Amino acid sequence: MIVVLKKGIEDSVVTKIAKRVEEMGLKAHVIVGTERTVIAAVGEKRNGEQETLESYPEVEKVVPILAPYKVASLETKLEHSVVETGSLKLGNGHLGVIAGPCSVESEEQILESAKAVKAAGATALRGGAFKPRTSPYSFQGLKEVGLQYLAAAREATGLSIVTEVMTPEHVDLVAQYSDVLQIGARNMQNYHLLQAVGEIDKPVLLKRGPSATIDEFLLAAEYILDGGNSNVILCERGIRTFEAHTRFTLPLATVPYLKERTHLPVVVDPSHGTGIASLVKPMALAGIAAGADGLIIEVHPNPAEAASDAAQTISTEAFADLMVQCRKVAGALGYKMAEAVGV
Amino acid sequence: MIVVLKKGIEDSVVTKIAKRVEEMGLKAHVIVGTERTVIAAVGEKRNGEQETLESYPEVEKVVPILAPYKVASLETKLEHSVVETGSLKLGNGHLGVIAGPCSVESEEQILESAKAVKAAGATALRGGAFKPRTSPYSFQGLKEVGLQYLAAAREATGLSIVTEVMTPEHVDLVAQYSDVLQIGARNMQNYHLLQAVGEIDKPVLLKRGPSATIDEFLLAAEYILDGGNSNVILCERGIRTFEAHTRFTLPLATVPYLKERTHLPVVVDPSHGTGIASLVKPMALAGIAAGADGLIIEVHPNPAEAASDAAQTISTEAFADLMVQCRKVAGALGYKMAEAVGV
Amino acid sequence: MIVVLKKGIEDSVVTKIAKRVEEMGLKAHVIVGTERTVIAAVGEKRNGEQETLESYPEVEKVVPILAPYKVASLETKLEHSVVETGSLKLGNGHLGVIAGPCSVESEEQILESAKAVKAAGATALRGGAFKPRTSPYSFQGLKEVGLQYLAAAREATGLSIVTEVMTPEHVDLVAQYSDVLQIGARNMQNYHLLQAVGEIDKPVLLKRGPSATIDEFLLAAEYILDGGNSNVILCERGIRTFEAHTRFTLPLATVPYLKERTHLPVVVDPSHGTGIASLVKPMALAGIAAGADGLIIEVHPNPAEAASDAAQTISTEAFADLMVQCRKVAGALGYKMAEAVGV
Amino acid sequence: MIVVLKKGIEDSVVTKIAKRVEEMGLKAHVIVGTERTVIAAVGEKRNGEQETLESYPEVEKVVPILAPYKVASLETKLEHSVVETGSLKLGNGHLGVIAGPCSVESEEQILESAKAVKAAGATALRGGAFKPRTSPYSFQGLKEVGLQYLAAAREATGLSIVTEVMTPEHVDLVAQYSDVLQIGARNMQNYHLLQAVGEIDKPVLLKRGPSATIDEFLLAAEYILDGGNSNVILCERGIRTFEAHTRFTLPLATVPYLKERTHLPVVVDPSHGTGIASLVKPMALAGIAAGADGLIIEVHPNPAEAASDAAQTISTEAFADLMVQCRKVAGALGYKMAEAVGV
Repeated sequence: MIVVLKKGIEDSVVTKIAKRVEEMGLKAHVIVGTERTVIAAVGEKRNGEQETLESYPEVEKVVPILAPYKVASLETKLEHSVVETGSLKLGNGHLGVIAGPCSVESEEQILESAKAVKAAGATALRGGAFKPRTSPYSFQGLKEVGLQYLAAAREATGLSIVTEVMTPEHVDLVAQYSDVLQIGARNMQNYHLLQAVGEIDKPVLLKRGPSATIDEFLLAAEYILDGGNSNVILCERGIRTFEAHTRFTLPLATVPYLKERTHLPVVVDPSHGTGIASLVKPMALAGIAAGADGLIIEVHPNPAEAASDAAQTISTEAFADLMVQCRKVAGALGYKMAEAVGV
Repeated sequence: MIVVLKKGIEDSVVTKIAKRVEEMGLKAHVIVGTERTVIAAVGEKRNGEQETLESYPEVEKVVPILAPYKVASLETKLEHSVVETGSLKLGNGHLGVIAGPCSVESEEQILESAKAVKAAGATALRGGAFKPRTSPYSFQGLKEVGLQYLAAAREATGLSIVTEVMTPEHVDLVAQYSDVLQIGARNMQNYHLLQAVGEIDKPVLLKRGPSATIDEFLLAAEYILDGGNSNVILCERGIRTFEAHTRFTLPLATVPYLKERTHLPVVVDPSHGTGIASLVKPMALAGIAAGADGLIIEVHPNPAEAASDAAQTISTEAFADLMVQCRKVAGALGYKMAEAVGV
Repeated sequence: MIVVLKKGIEDSVVTKIAKRVEEMGLKAHVIVGTERTVIAAVGEKRNGEQETLESYPEVEKVVPILAPYKVASLETKLEHSVVETGSLKLGNGHLGVIAGPCSVESEEQILESAKAVKAAGATALRGGAFKPRTSPYSFQGLKEVGLQYLAAAREATGLSIVTEVMTPEHVDLVAQYSDVLQIGARNMQNYHLLQAVGEIDKPVLLKRGPSATIDEFLLAAEYILDGGNSNVILCERGIRTFEAHTRFTLPLATVPYLKERTHLPVVVDPSHGTGIASLVKPMALAGIAAGADGLIIEVHPNPAEAASDAAQTISTEAFADLMVQCRKVAGALGYKMAEAVGV
Repeated sequence: MIVVLKKGIEDSVVTKIAKRVEEMGLKAHVIVGTERTVIAAVGEKRNGEQETLESYPEVEKVVPILAPYKVASLETKLEHSVVETGSLKLGNGHLGVIAGPCSVESEEQILESAKAVKAAGATALRGGAFKPRTSPYSFQGLKEVGLQYLAAAREATGLSIVTEVMTPEHVDLVAQYSDVLQIGARNMQNYHLLQAVGEIDKPVLLKRGPSATIDEFLLAAEYILDGGNSNVILCERGIRTFEAHTRFTLPLATVPYLKERTHLPVVVDPSHGTGIASLVKPMALAGIAAGADGLIIEVHPNPAEAASDAAQTISTEAFADLMVQCRKVAGALGYKMAEAVGV
């Protein structure tokens, strides 16, 4: 940490703060500048020392040197990770595509969706059984029945399942049916839930919260990793900004930025990231070009009949076209992406 | 809802969409403008019709007319609510001040804090026993022992207790000790938690999420109200914006804006809202001037020793001074605020 | 500056970068930490050294220690400045209130406005003659005729005039009529305009751009100060955030934050800051409570007939009520504010 | 426009507002809903009627139906425009790449840059002669001498020149040397400047302001188009959001969103959009995949020696590599992009 003192601080105060730094188990280097004195605190830990030092009125600011996350860091594990479960393989050059409806609505709907997305080349099926909805008056999902339909769709198609879990007490239930457990954006900092999925042995897809910084995002992943589960997939799904023409702003620079700092795979969600069906394809292509390890896309046999997220859901035909284009971009850049299997 | 169609849409499509509107149980009025046709859908419900209509490629946009929340609305209950529990009374002209440390650290610390804030005029004691922390490596709170210390502080001072609950399975435990259950900003859309506190008979202080719109905030409250718990206090604690010189941006216009729309009391948190101790007093004063029903403030006998949030925590002396000034502003504007009781 | 190097950088590179620091005329202190090496560059100037050092691939980040502005700093001039011109006095305990219509529309309209705001206690008259409008199809102002009407209103009431100048070539013209030249939010970084008003001897009211950081805001003021004009009034008028229920988000913490760092007076614009007439009074009161040196408010004899900004303009009656309340809050906190003179 | 009235408004008020709508030359349709009455105002113009109607206290909100821009709209000109000047051709399937240093520093530097970017396949040269700088203490550009060096580089390489103009009085001077005039992000709403470049017959590259909405961006273009200059290139260069790990957030969904609404070509600036050299290539690739008509990129023979924007500037070697990859993606998607000419 670098502790920047205010102008004109007396030597005795500098000494007092340097002493406090040493009491924290750090080594204090006092550097007297022309206008300011700073104290470099070497041996930084990550336990709130920064806030303590900031609380001194004589301190202008405290600048951390080290990233606050550890296990997620590419400095800790030098090679990019691959997450693999059943039909889904993501990371280190392998592109995975997770596709399916926002909500599981019926056995027919999820089965039809699964077959169509598989035919187009998707490598996993998404579908919500427990649905976090902004309004208590909206459809809340089919719950366990939805999970059973998802399992039936896996049975029929071989596609791995990705579905959301919303609360710690459902983790075992969802893990019983699903191959990957999704933590939604609203729950990115639901720490009991993160701890609960940290204790299972299935991969977790962690969505970035719409106002989470990169450090907060990686620290949320760190909760899962710290629990012993090393199979975490990060998902950029858009942030909240002043832009109102799209549902969220999809900041694709997150992808290469994360990949310089963490070994965890990064996927992009152009459906939530834009909220507009016609923008899903260009942003899926852009995501791959930016270096994403995969995509997660909302697809429905009949978007206008979808029980949720209709405006951002693309049809199975549009998805097939999207996949054709994605394979072109992936091919041009040398990424490995599954071929379409056709009908 | 108003369904705005794209330019040059054929009559047959207009008819098709109007028919779909009628199938939703709404009445469709088609209005042919000079450049656009719009369909006014009368009899609006709040169940996702908007998204469905937005999914038609011929639809430019859909504009809802009604607010999506109901029970929270000032149109439903025409008078501003008062929440009262023990020493705390908030709303409709009564100002309550909730003060205390970020974390409960020891019995002595919370007791000393409680006595000091009471002496200065606070009407409730805050203190975290279960702490949501960005990093898994930070202090996570004393948990049930912390709750016991809080109860002891209430015993000693008569101050009502406000403390956070982080997960549904802890709701009963926390409700056993605390007078008001706080839902933190990170959990504003943790729906299982909202449902759980909707079923208890103690007031809930709901903090606005840092990227929540006002509609999302009121819909989160609606989850609690819909569960049968009508004692909800809304708390503005700052939003995430591009401003980096403060921890969050504290948008005080939320206060009068909410009070035009909801009967629920609104309190302001200038500690989290700024993240900087020296800004807490001016923003507390501004919150009262803006019409807030109360304040929630982080106070510690020795901020530099605080286990968490040290940089934004004020000393008990600074709090006493803040209260003197707050009483002046409240008095000037005719609000009722408790007098200091002294030591 | 603190230059943080990436992990595992070889000593030869550390030496190379330290040498480069010395070539910049700074003194380099190399501090070897447990995980990182940092170089403290002492003797910091403000000429782009930061960017140069950031361009090295081995550099993780560069953290400046000194604020980039100088003349505006409270470290340079230790006492808060007062800006005074005719009827307007602002700063260091003196509250000024600038009120009037968004646009000058006619001689009668501006005269009626001036008399009404003066009667209520305003100490300066605002009104736009040159209007920056988002759309080329909107009313662009009466231009020089508008300036003449403003001068006539000053003649009749004694109120100082505040009006906007949009382009360098108009600076002399506007300065001929107006007592204070306003730089609008859209022009906060129009450097030729800043330089032009830096050369005149009349006060400048500089509005914060809607996405300007505090450093950028103070550096814009620095352009004016650097030109030799020391009478700069800073104006917080709202920033752009994800909040869409108000026109802008009014971050009042700007006021005390600025006053800790600069000697320049700070005023608040609750009209643009909210965009909603009913929110103007509470946010004006909050601004004063937060420590603002003044207010600038849009007032029109008949808001529904206003040529621009109708939705955020309050009536002269509402303004008179606002002033009564503002005087109460100012009085409670010991600020000097002009009394109403009545009709 | 749709005028939404508050709940429980009396019939006489509805009639009064509907009458006002008719006085504006619009046709008023009153629609009585179950909870609200709305007035559809048909025949919408774009002259401030919305604000006037919003100023009525009985009005909840006013929703415009039509986009506020006209000439820029794809509804006005149904085909995507191509902008062509010398070596630069952009739009409707043609990709142009504008590359070069942030600032012109010397004749050698700009000539070396020009040759290198041409060899790699760039189709225009960028370089700043008049530099808008946040701080008055930073290098402000070589001014007219810089323009002369740019012209010499065009002479030597055949590359068209793109350079910024900052103030109306420089428009003729800059137009004398440059092929395309750039309006920087800080000046996007400098209306006198927009009007000045609207009167010349050279293309204008208009950068989006960091907090501009899409409507504001297109209305800024409309100022230029309305002046008679139809050769406007839009440039997405990043917006200001809470993200601090990049200089700006680059929202690539702007590209397909704009292309659905306007016929003007859209280019992406991954240099300013990220502020970090290592992110420029992935975001350039992503921009092309998202459908951009071109790129504008900061390239310098020796980034560490660059007089400005060093941290986001890539070397000529890195640019050559970027171009190889861009051509692959462009080829995969069927866009026309110039081949590298080699040294």
